[in-house]
Formats: sequence, structure tokens, C-alpha cells
Amino acid sequence: MKKIAIIMGSDSDLPIVKKAIDTLVEFGVPHEVHVFSAHRTPEESALFSKSARENGFGAIIAAAGMAAHLAGAIAANTTLPVVGIPVSSNNMGGIDALLSTVQMPSGIPVATVAVNGASNAALLCIQMLAIEDSELAAALNAKRQKDRETVLKKNAAVEEEFNK
Amino acid sequence: MKKIAIIMGSDSDLPIVKKAIDTLVEFGVPHEVHVFSAHRTPEESALFSKSARENGFGAIIAAAGMAAHLAGAIAANTTLPVVGIPVSSNNMGGIDALLSTVQMPSGIPVATVAVNGASNAALLCIQMLAIEDSELAAALNAKRQKDRETVLKKNAAVEEEFNK
Amino acid sequence: MKKIAIIMGSDSDLPIVKKAIDTLVEFGVPHEVHVFSAHRTPEESALFSKSARENGFGAIIAAAGMAAHLAGAIAANTTLPVVGIPVSSNNMGGIDALLSTVQMPSGIPVATVAVNGASNAALLCIQMLAIEDSELAAALNAKRQKDRETVLKKNAAVEEEFNK
Amino acid sequence: MKKIAIIMGSDSDLPIVKKAIDTLVEFGVPHEVHVFSAHRTPEESALFSKSARENGFGAIIAAAGMAAHLAGAIAANTTLPVVGIPVSSNNMGGIDALLSTVQMPSGIPVATVAVNGASNAALLCIQMLAIEDSELAAALNAKRQKDRETVLKKNAAVEEEFNK
Amino acid sequence: MKKIAIIMGSDSDLPIVKKAIDTLVEFGVPHEVHVFSAHRTPEESALFSKSARENGFGAIIAAAGMAAHLAGAIAANTTLPVVGIPVSSNNMGGIDALLSTVQMPSGIPVATVAVNGASNAALLCIQMLAIEDSELAAALNAKRQKDRETVLKKNAAVEEEFNK
Amino acid sequence: MKKIAIIMGSDSDLPIVKKAIDTLVEFGVPHEVHVFSAHRTPEESALFSKSARENGFGAIIAAAGMAAHLAGAIAANTTLPVVGIPVSSNNMGGIDALLSTVQMPSGIPVATVAVNGASNAALLCIQMLAIEDSELAAALNAKRQKDRETVLKKNAAVEEEFNK
Amino acid sequence: MKKIAIIMGSDSDLPIVKKAIDTLVEFGVPHEVHVFSAHRTPEESALFSKSARENGFGAIIAAAGMAAHLAGAIAANTTLPVVGIPVSSNNMGGIDALLSTVQMPSGIPVATVAVNGASNAALLCIQMLAIEDSELAAALNAKRQKDRETVLKKNAAVEEEFNK
Amino acid sequence: MKKIAIIMGSDSDLPIVKKAIDTLVEFGVPHEVHVFSAHRTPEESALFSKSARENGFGAIIAAAGMAAHLAGAIAANTTLPVVGIPVSSNNMGGIDALLSTVQMPSGIPVATVAVNGASNAALLCIQMLAIEDSELAAALNAKRQKDRETVLKKNAAVEEEFNK
Repeated sequence: MKKIAIIMGSDSDLPIVKKAIDTLVEFGVPHEVHVFSAHRTPEESALFSKSARENGFGAIIAAAGMAAHLAGAIAANTTLPVVGIPVSSNNMGGIDALLSTVQMPSGIPVATVAVNGASNAALLCIQMLAIEDSELAAALNAKRQKDRETVLKKNAAVEEEFNK
Repeated sequence: MKKIAIIMGSDSDLPIVKKAIDTLVEFGVPHEVHVFSAHRTPEESALFSKSARENGFGAIIAAAGMAAHLAGAIAANTTLPVVGIPVSSNNMGGIDALLSTVQMPSGIPVATVAVNGASNAALLCIQMLAIEDSELAAALNAKRQKDRETVLKKNAAVEEEFNK
Repeated sequence: MKKIAIIMGSDSDLPIVKKAIDTLVEFGVPHEVHVFSAHRTPEESALFSKSARENGFGAIIAAAGMAAHLAGAIAANTTLPVVGIPVSSNNMGGIDALLSTVQMPSGIPVATVAVNGASNAALLCIQMLAIEDSELAAALNAKRQKDRETVLKKNAAVEEEFNK
Repeated sequence: MKKIAIIMGSDSDLPIVKKAIDTLVEFGVPHEVHVFSAHRTPEESALFSKSARENGFGAIIAAAGMAAHLAGAIAANTTLPVVGIPVSSNNMGGIDALLSTVQMPSGIPVATVAVNGASNAALLCIQMLAIEDSELAAALNAKRQKDRETVLKKNAAVEEEFNK
Repeated sequence: MKKIAIIMGSDSDLPIVKKAIDTLVEFGVPHEVHVFSAHRTPEESALFSKSARENGFGAIIAAAGMAAHLAGAIAANTTLPVVGIPVSSNNMGGIDALLSTVQMPSGIPVATVAVNGASNAALLCIQMLAIEDSELAAALNAKRQKDRETVLKKNAAVEEEFNK
Repeated sequence: MKKIAIIMGSDSDLPIVKKAIDTLVEFGVPHEVHVFSAHRTPEESALFSKSARENGFGAIIAAAGMAAHLAGAIAANTTLPVVGIPVSSNNMGGIDALLSTVQMPSGIPVATVAVNGASNAALLCIQMLAIEDSELAAALNAKRQKDRETVLKKNAAVEEEFNK
Repeated sequence: MKKIAIIMGSDSDLPIVKKAIDTLVEFGVPHEVHVFSAHRTPEESALFSKSARENGFGAIIAAAGMAAHLAGAIAANTTLPVVGIPVSSNNMGGIDALLSTVQMPSGIPVATVAVNGASNAALLCIQMLAIEDSELAAALNAKRQKDRETVLKKNAAVEEEFNK
Repeated sequence: MKKIAIIMGSDSDLPIVKKAIDTLVEFGVPHEVHVFSAHRTPEESALFSKSARENGFGAIIAAAGMAAHLAGAIAANTTLPVVGIPVSSNNMGGIDALLSTVQMPSGIPVATVAVNGASNAALLCIQMLAIEDSELAAALNAKRQKDRETVLKKNAAVEEEFNK
């Protein structure tokens, strides 16, 4: 199976990014985690991106806040799918990171998820791998079913409490 | 090769969506185009989504404006990757469609591109298919190279005009 | 009397939704509370909506946050009036949920109240039922009168404190 | 059948409000149209609102732009359901009117529709009347079906053009 | 001297409004404080406004949050200058109250100050009274001078600490 | 009678500012119009402000766009009431000018009107002068009455057209 | 004299960027103009930036729209001052480009000017060169004086027209 | 070496501004710190700015919140480069200060950094001084290298923890 790379712009993003790692672990998807900054270590970031496909990666997750250039900088150096997680910082609720991540110019897409939506970033990568991997597709469907049952259980509890 | 589905919420989105179709045609990627509304034809939309994987689709592009629920409604009914194109309408520059598309809850990701970013939505799907298709990956790299050369040519023209 | 349905997208919305329940209880309006997710349990949500009118409901309240599709998804499956409560989440003060709830396309209205405005959502449904129920209309007028008196009392206290 | 009142804050809102009138005409719902300004004719506005229920109205639509107080001012003087249409003006895409209309305090709800969403405002009122009027409910369902067929026809045309 | 009226939409606005009262007390300007709600006690609010000029008031301060209609509702019923204080609530940092207060239609101005800017609202009213009251003008100038000296003292302290 | 000063930051603001001039002319209020830039002619702007009171002015209107500092810069140099008109520019619908004008620090109020709300800026100044000028107060009341009648006439025309 | 580099992300930015070129020409400041894309020609962009200081540049202007990463990408590869011009695109009035340009992380500043503020970007670079170049400083002062006189002349024309 | 001036609008900005001071100390760049308010001490602010160049300053940093006019007011009185730090206040996450600082009119640039980005403001000034000071340029490069190594170390720690 192809690997998923998770790149964060700063290790202060780790509490958010952790949910992506956990999701990949839950699905048994091989992955690597790195701290590369689009601005402080642009070369490491570019080098990693350029060789990611030949190094066995299938997709790259990039998490960054503020003027969140990381996902775009990675996407500029690979044609692998790049998933961007806008990370909220103190002042603006993540709207700066969201616009900096999603408003990419034609030719260099970044697949953007919700502000701090790390778990969904991982799921999106797993969905990509599952296009050609029916076992993984089955695991995704199973998780959906489980999520569905969790909601139904919560529904039952709420109905029990309020509908007499 | 897996097919890509392009769903638009209204045929008024066609001028935007056309760029996605053109990009898929350019790469020779098989595709289908449909008009399904999350709100006016929810059943057709759900039916299509539920059977998309078994019908040979690899990913689904959904374009919608305003309270753009289409991509999320499709994502709720499939574990294929869903790419959302927020379409701008008259009043708000697409910020309503962007937030309605990207701010998905945990478990149901939508890979969101820029407002009106239809060409990138198609490229993103092609990138997904190219994870396991080295020919397609080569075509993506070739296009990148061509885009690069276009910029270099424009650079040469600008340099010619302004740097003497 | 017709019943009011209160649907929340997640049981984490319960602290907000509780104010709607309390208001319906206060007016003695029959109601049911459910947890249905537009994305995690789309079928339950659609099934409930489709049969709501014949099951004796007069209106449906839907509360959801982020890309708040729930009210719209319900509205797509019934012609009963649907009242949407945008629920604020951590990052954006509910502006994402507000736009996702209110900016509905022509043909499928959602009656949107303020961010976290659960009590008003319930009042709005009671107002709808009161169109043809003069007793309920009288109860609404009585509550208005009571609210008015509360403000007058607070006014008296403030006047007492500051105007000598 | 109860009548629907349509109040606009200025006759410059008429091009928007016209869609609400047309929708009420389409459904054969009796209605009255007035120009009352929350700020320039507050007494007429209040008088109308206070006597609306006894004058045979079932709901009131209020359309206004900028600091759109009209719907709230009407809602303050009646316990009939009030539907607010935020009207966009030149500078802010209607976000000022939207927030001024929807962010109502507890006790005085305004059922807010999309910016310039006049047709939906009318539909919402018809839905309210249809709670106890099965004929009207049937007409709403018929219109939904017609809208659905329009989308299906557009889908067929798009499929014809792009899917060979 | 003319009196200044301070109206708040809810006594929960008192912690903000208190700064306006304190400023009026500081300048010895006669004033009255009231709790009138544009929506819950519209008649008291209108009555007060209509008779404010003949009751010896020179200007009216109105403080309200969310869909802050209070200042506009008062301004609709008097030609005295009305000063609006947008009060921030939990979710939107007061931008809803700001737009609802400031974006008034032609003919009915509201002099709007910063979100939660109660002290400035009082100063503005004092400035209005001081147009024809040279003693009050002198007091305003004296306060400016005092504020200026406070800044200069803070500057001296900072210079002492950092510039050696 | 005290004079009103109208200062614009650039003569490109004249089409907006013209409505303020017209309103002052309509009420026969003496006034002066100047182009002073907070940034390009800060000294002229400061000089004018400092001597405005002794030169017979009762209030100052300042109109500016973008980072609209003009009103605040004038307010820093006088204790006369300063009314700010945020002028919209191409890109942001005037939200930049609005926030730059209204969000003044404690001690230096600017009475802010709607984006491009020049006529209301003039009315506000006339209201200030009318605090101690009963003739002007009567003129303001007469204009209100006239505005009221205009709305009533428009109402009659709309009623004639739509209510049969 | 050190040279100024002007980099635009796309030649579609040229109409905006032209004002920066004109300003540098006006001051006789040597410069070079290039089209480098942060995403389409990241290597050319990085190479240019890394060698800019040794190639005789004193500062770099970067203009880009949407997810405007260009200025930040250049700043990541040089310690020369980088001035960012956020360019507005169709949908969002440049707020996306502004936030993407200005919200840089600690360590990698971008000196951001107003949306489309190309002339100011050039002036800022000239101001930087003028720190150690008294002739250039004199030219800047002369231009300020000229701008001042232009405003004074416009003021005279406006005074002539409106103040009799 | 030229000195850097740091001006804050209020000593409440000191916790933010402190990072700028620390950065200048770290690089051994001579500096002065002052509290001057654009509105409360406009003359001191203007006087300082006008004489800053002849007093040996090379650039001026200005930090202010809300309607942050300070940087612009300083820039109006000098042709030295002015760097603006928008400081966030309670309600709006600094977007008011950002727009008030960055959206300067043509002719009077302010080099704006991120909301609360004080350290970058200092770095930007050091970069300006380093244009003609190769020792300082070397120090900037060294700090970049150190920042780079910090990221690499954090990367190593994260790799150690998650990649086995």
C-alpha cells in the first residue's frame, strides 16, 4: 500500500495533527510524519515533495496556520494529491489559514478540509487509496456504518430522555 | 480506468463546471456529467452516490453555490473521494458556498477547491487516479512542465518589455 | 394539535437545543426530539422528513453547526416548514453555520433564526401552529406581555439605581 | 384562507419583492402588499402589525436592506410569524441586512431567508398556512414535483450533451 | 443644561453602559438611565423618544447587541441626535450589532461609536451639548489635556525602562 | 448659527460628499467645504481642526475611504463633535473605511454613519445644532413629516398596483 | 544604487504592477521585472530570491492574488526586505490575498501594502534605499511636497466651488 | 548604525511590542521606545516623526489596535519606512486594526505585518538596515539558519516519536 505523508508547518500544530495520525493508525495505513516549514525549511519541504511519489507515497497531508502556504508549497513540487488542513490560530478563527490554503491558482490544487479538520484529512487520503483497494474501501464503509450506529445510539438516548 | 463523475447542483453552474469537463477531456479521463440537486432531487443524488463505486467511478466532483450542500450530501452517501467546487453567486463572492462546502463534520470529508476552481477540481481527481496509474502521473507531470514553460515565456516577454 | 419535531445533528448540540425543548414544554406543545445527522444518518433523516406530515408534525426544527446542512436536507424531503438553528462551533462564531443554513436555493426555504437561537426557533413553530389556534395565540400574547413586564421591572430597578 | 402580508421598507425593494408576490399569486394565496418603513413610518408599521391577526393575516413577510430593522420591528408588534428577507444593497452583498434581520433577541423570532430570497419567503408562508390546509400542502408537493422534473430535464439535456 | 438619556436594550448591557454613566457623572451632565427594548417594550421606547425633546433631553444614547435595532428605533421617533453603542455578544465580536446600528437608511441617522464604546458615546453627547456651552467645552478640553498627560507619563515610564 | 465643516480626504470623494452639502443647503445651515488629507496635508487638517471651534464651527464632517483616518485625525485636534463618513472603495465594500472610522479608542469619539451615508452625516450635524435651536428642530421635524408622506405615497401606489 | 526587483505571480497582475514600475522609473531607481510563480515555477522563484542580494538587489516586491504565497515564498529564500502586494481577484475583493500575504509566521516578515497598492510598494522600497541615500530621501520629500500641493490645489478648487 | 524607533499607541500594547524590542536587542540594533498616541498626543507623535530622520532613525515601528491610525499618522510625517503592527483587541481578532493599518492611500505606505506580529516588525526593520550593512545581513542569515535548525530538530523529535 502507498504511504501517506503528514507534514506540519510547526510542531505546535501537533495537537491538531494528532487526529490525522490516529485515523491512519486506526485504518492500518502506513504513514510518515514530518515537521517541514514552507518558510523556515523550504528546501527540505521541496525536496521531500519532489521525491514523495518515487518514495512510495500516495498522498500528502499538510497542516499550517495563519498565512498557511505549506500545502500549496508542497503541491507546487509534486503531482501527488495534497490535502490541506487550515489550522486556527488565536486571532481569526482560522479564516486566514482557510483562505491561504483553499484559494489556489489553476493548475496546483490543494484538497482543503475544514479548519482543524485533521481527521477528515486522513480519511480523504484513505479514500484516495481505496479507489483501487477494495479492502480499504470496505474498511471505510465499515467505519461509516459504525459512525451511523453511534448517531443512532445517541438518538435512542435522546429519544429516551425527551420523548415519553 | 475509473471514471470521474461531475455533478452540478444547477445547470446555471455549467459555465464554471465546463472547465472541469475540459480538463478531464484534455487528460483523456472517462467521465460523466449530471445535474442533481441536493435539495430538488435528493433521491437521484443519493442513488447516484450510493452506487457510484460499483458503477466504476473513482471520484466525484460536486459544484454548487449559496448554501452549497451538494458535495456534502454526496459524500454522505459514498466513501469515494468527493471534491467540492464552491460556486460564487451574486452577493457574497462565494464565501457562503465555500464555508458550506469545506466546514464538513468529522467522518465525512469534502476535498474543497477554490471558489469557482473547477479546473483544479478535475486535476485533483486525476491526481487521485494517478496514485496507481503511472501513465496518468506522467501526463500530470507533463502538464506541470507545460504550465511552467508558459510562465517562463510570459516572464521572458515581461523581461523583454521592462528590463533593458 | 400538530406536533413539533426537534432534530439535532449531533447530541453535542443538546445544550443549545434544550432551550427549544423547554419553550415547547412551557407552551404545552407536543413534540419529539431526535438526533439525525444529515451526513452520518442521511436515510433516517430523509425517512423522518418524508413522513413527518402524515405522522402528525406541523413543523420541524433542525439544529446543526459548521457546514450546517441538516435543516436544508430535511427541507428537501418535506414541504412542512423547517426552522434552522445555526449552532456556533469553536472557530468562526457560527457564521459558517448561519450561511450554510440561510442561503438556501429558490424552492426549498429554511426559516433561519439567530446563531444558537433555539428558544426563538421553538417560538416560531408555536407561532405557526397559532395561526389557526387562537388559544395558542393567546398564550403567545401572554408570554409577550410577561416578557414586557420583565423588561419594565428591570427598567424600574435601573431607574431606581441611577436616576435620583 | 388567512392572508399573507408583504411589507417592504422602500419601494426600491419592489424588484426583489415581486418574486414573493408572484409566488403567492401562483398558489392562489390571498395577500396584501404595503410599503411601510420601520424608520420613516414607524406608526403605520406598528399599527398594521398590531392588528394583522384580527385583520385576517396568517403571516407577514418583511423585506429591507442595510440596517434591516423592518422584520424585527413588525415582529415586536405581533405574535404572527414574521418572515424576513434581507435585501442586498450596493456595498456589502447583503451581509448587513442578513445580520440585522436574523440575529434577533430571545422572544421575538424572525424567520430569515437568504439574501434577496423573496420567492422562498412566500413559500415559507404558504408552508405555514399548509400546516392545517391539506389542499395547499398538496399544491406545495406538486410544485416540488415540478421543480424536481425541471432539474431532471436539465440533467437529461446536460447528459445528452456531455455523456456519449 | 439639557439632559442626556441612556437607554439600554437589556439590563445585561449594564456593565458596558456603566462607562457612559460614569462619564456623564464625571462631567456633571444631568442624565436618565432606562431599560427599554426595541422589541419587548416598543411602545415605551417610542413614547420616551417622541417626548424626549420636550422633556428636556438634548441627546439619547442607545446600547444594544445582536440585531441591535434600539438606536434606530429611537431615532425613528425623535429628531434629537441618537448615539448608538453596538454591544458585543458571545459569537460574532459585535459585528452584527455594529452593522445593525450604523447602516441606517437616509433620513434617520444614528451616530455610531465603537463596539462597546460606551465612554465615547457619553463624550459625544457632551460634545454636542458643548457646542453652545463654553464651560462644558472647557471641561472637554481639560479632559483631553489630562488624557494627554496620562499618555506622556506612560511614555516617560516606558522610555525610562527601555531607553538607556 | 454655528457653521458645519465638511472635510473630504480626496476630491474623488466629492460625489458622495455632495449629498451632505445638498442637505446643509436644504436646511439653510452655513457651512464650509474643504479637501484636507490626514496623510498628505496633516498640518492643514490639524490647524483647521484646532481652530474650528473659535472659527465658529459647531461640528465637523469628515469623509474618507480605505484606512479612513481623517475623521479620527480631526477628532484628535478638537473637542467639537466629529461625524465620520466611511467611503466605499473598489475592493471591500467600505468595510475597511467603516472599521477605520468607527473603532476609535476611548476619549476620542467619532460619530460614524453608514458607508457612503453623507446625507445622514449632514442631518446628524443639523440635529446637534437643533438641540438649542428650536427653529432648526422644527425644520427637522418637518422633513421627517415629508419623508413620511413620501413613503405613504409610495405605499399608496404599491397598494393600488397589487391589492385589488 | 541597489536595484529593486518586481516579481508578479502571473502576467495578469501586470496592470496593477505597472504602477510600481512607473513609480520606480519616476524616482530613477534601477529595477528588474519578472514573472515567477510560487506554484508554477517555484525553482526559478527560489533561485532568484537566494541570489538576489549578491546580484545587487536591495529589496523585492512580490504581487499575487488569491492564496497569494509568492511574497512569502520569496521571503523564505532571502533576508532582503520583501514587500507584498495583495492583488484582488473577482470574488473576494482581495481579502484572500491580503490575509495570505500579511499573516506570515514569526521569522519571515512580508511588508504588506494595501490591496492593489502597487505604487506604495514601490515607494516603500525607495524609502528603504533612502535610509542611507540622502539624495533619494530628498526626492521622496519633494514628492510628498508635490502631493501636498496637489491636495491643496484641489482644496482650493473645492473651496472656490462651494464656499462663497 | 541608524536607530529604530518603536512607538506604541498605548502602554497596554507593551506585552505585544516587547517581542519587537527583544528582537532588536538580540541583533544589537540601537533603538528607542515611546508611547505616543495618534489621537491623544498627536503633536508629540508628529514632532517625533518629522525629526526622526535627522535624529538618526532609519525606520519606525508603530503598534496600535482598533482604528489603528498610529502607523499612518507617523507615515504622514516622515519619508522613513514605517512598519505597522496591528494589535488585536477583545472583539474582532485584530481585523479592524489590520485594515486600518494596511489600507493606506497612494503616496503614504505603511509596511504592515501580521496581527500582533511584533517580532517580524523588528526583523523587517533590521532587514532594511541590512541592505547596506553586510554584517547585519550576515546576522540575519545566521538567525535564519538557527530557525531552520530549530525546525529540523523538532522534525527529528516528531519523526522519532511517530515514524518507526
